[in-house]
Amino acid sequence: MQILKDRIRKDGKIREGNVLKVDSFLNHQMDVSLFREIGKEFKRRFEGEEITKILTIEASGIGIACVVAEVFNVPVVFAKKTQTKNIAGDVYTTQVESYTHGRIYDIIVSREFLGPDDKVLLIDDFMANGKAMEGLIQIVKDSGAQLVGAGIVIEKGFQPGGDALRDQGVHLESLAIVESMDEKTGEIVFR
Amino acid sequence: MQILKDRIRKDGKIREGNVLKVDSFLNHQMDVSLFREIGKEFKRRFEGEEITKILTIEASGIGIACVVAEVFNVPVVFAKKTQTKNIAGDVYTTQVESYTHGRIYDIIVSREFLGPDDKVLLIDDFMANGKAMEGLIQIVKDSGAQLVGAGIVIEKGFQPGGDALRDQGVHLESLAIVESMDEKTGEIVFR
Repeated sequence: MQILKDRIRKDGKIREGNVLKVDSFLNHQMDVSLFREIGKEFKRRFEGEEITKILTIEASGIGIACVVAEVFNVPVVFAKKTQTKNIAGDVYTTQVESYTHGRIYDIIVSREFLGPDDKVLLIDDFMANGKAMEGLIQIVKDSGAQLVGAGIVIEKGFQPGGDALRDQGVHLESLAIVESMDEKTGEIVFR
Repeated sequence: MQILKDRIRKDGKIREGNVLKVDSFLNHQMDVSLFREIGKEFKRRFEGEEITKILTIEASGIGIACVVAEVFNVPVVFAKKTQTKNIAGDVYTTQVESYTHGRIYDIIVSREFLGPDDKVLLIDDFMANGKAMEGLIQIVKDSGAQLVGAGIVIEKGFQPGGDALRDQGVHLESLAIVESMDEKTGEIVFR
């Protein structure tokens, strides 16, 4: 998706440890008009697929998922990272290792909102090692729902998450795949 | 907002300890077509106000804020609840006490995304004691931005947050104010 790649080149910042900061438009400040274009692009890439629900994970996936869901005209469910007293006991749950936060946490989705009748599209802003996606796929399996595919805004192609999902036969659409980036020159190469 | 009140009466569940569960459409599963109507209603209620940015707080505020922001045609910034390595050191920060989680946490907003030129509308899904809103207002003050007002989807009118903000002169618009609710009969009275 060219306008996304242009935006990453313009506003993305490369930091030590293979960190790509895109927090001026994607995951801290959020450019919702770009999100709308992203939604249309996912709609085009999953054309002809029946989708009843979008599943994402808190926190930064929620905004993009909601705007994408408007284009698909379906509800969003987001997996929560800790059990709060507002969640009933009857949940799907699995563990996810966070690259960003360097720890393992539980994610939960209420059984009420995902079941065998659902055809699910996963949406997230970022994928590196793919642990969050693996957790969401586990929850889709546990619910008996059908996994239609996964839409990722930015995939770090030099980390194993994306290719692992493709090898499993998941229909993965990443709108920008970063093949390499150079902290010193600021150069970003897309796949 | 009548369709919102109708939806709360239809799908809201009252639980022990003054908990109103609206997670089937507002803050776990998210009905984005309702969010769009909510966005239009906020637009009507803040008609004539100049707004350059919407500020919310993770996690459940993000979805509603993004859809509302599409109606206002402005970016969203969300306050983060913990410091991650993807956030630069240069942040506004304050402490917030969570009613839902029963603990105190730090919230942060990067200085890059909020400053004296901004005219800010706060958006959140829920308000009870108003601690999250107080934290966001503190951050707006620290940034030198102008606080235009706050838009809340559901306010618990029997808890002090909303009236405290009104007493401070904040232009607060709550689309549904729950005056009382009865766990036994399921009855909800709106202000």
